[in-house]
Amino acid sequence: MFVLNETLEADTVHLADWPLCRVLLMNDATYPWLILVPMREGLRDFHDLAAADKPLAMAEIDRVSLALQAIHGPDKLNVAALGNMVPQLHVHVIARFTTDPAWPGPVWGKVPARPYDGAALEETLARLRQAFDAAQ
Amino acid sequence: MFVLNETLEADTVHLADWPLCRVLLMNDATYPWLILVPMREGLRDFHDLAAADKPLAMAEIDRVSLALQAIHGPDKLNVAALGNMVPQLHVHVIARFTTDPAWPGPVWGKVPARPYDGAALEETLARLRQAFDAAQ
Repeated sequence: MFVLNETLEADTVHLADWPLCRVLLMNDATYPWLILVPMREGLRDFHDLAAADKPLAMAEIDRVSLALQAIHGPDKLNVAALGNMVPQLHVHVIARFTTDPAWPGPVWGKVPARPYDGAALEETLARLRQAFDAAQ
Repeated sequence: MFVLNETLEADTVHLADWPLCRVLLMNDATYPWLILVPMREGLRDFHDLAAADKPLAMAEIDRVSLALQAIHGPDKLNVAALGNMVPQLHVHVIARFTTDPAWPGPVWGKVPARPYDGAALEETLARLRQAFDAAQ
């Protein structure tokens, strides 16, 4: 049975459950930052994905990437499965800008998370869900 | 026509050309660190891969991951397409250890690269090529 890691649960807001992944918004308004968590038990590394799930993973990474691209027109998208802190397999998809506080370095550990305020959070979730529908 | 980015060329050693990717060893003995570069012109982001190339990308990420796993038995594998510094699409696959100098943070920009010496480089390339054959 799939249970979301509690750190991921605490740091994110739920957006959707897709065929393979739970889609989460990182609660950090510094970067447009989504996280995909394959809803399978016991996965750690990217290559642990079952053969049948690999095309789904690619399709769902594409879908969040296209949504972030459509909304934000970033300078670059970062896609990464690191998992040094949280062992449960999860894939970051982050819209990066040459003007963001971590550029050109990676975002992790650079500046403290800045949680969305209530209105901005609702608006962000709504825009993302709309962009996901368009990127289907 | 595919031309390898010159920074990637300068920082790595050639290991193999597979159906989709050029496989490179990062010339930094601090971490077992491979880089896959899809040999297609004009790719930047992970989702830019053509539909027909996506299964190849997954298979080749698996193959380098399994080779690193077999040789090093790492605590975690990091898989990442960042590209903030080098715009040409490339995927890092890095074997991580709780004892490495960047743990648990990401490796980029943490400590200066420590190039392999000649004998260690030859041995590393040979072990990797052998492990790639076993992971085919």
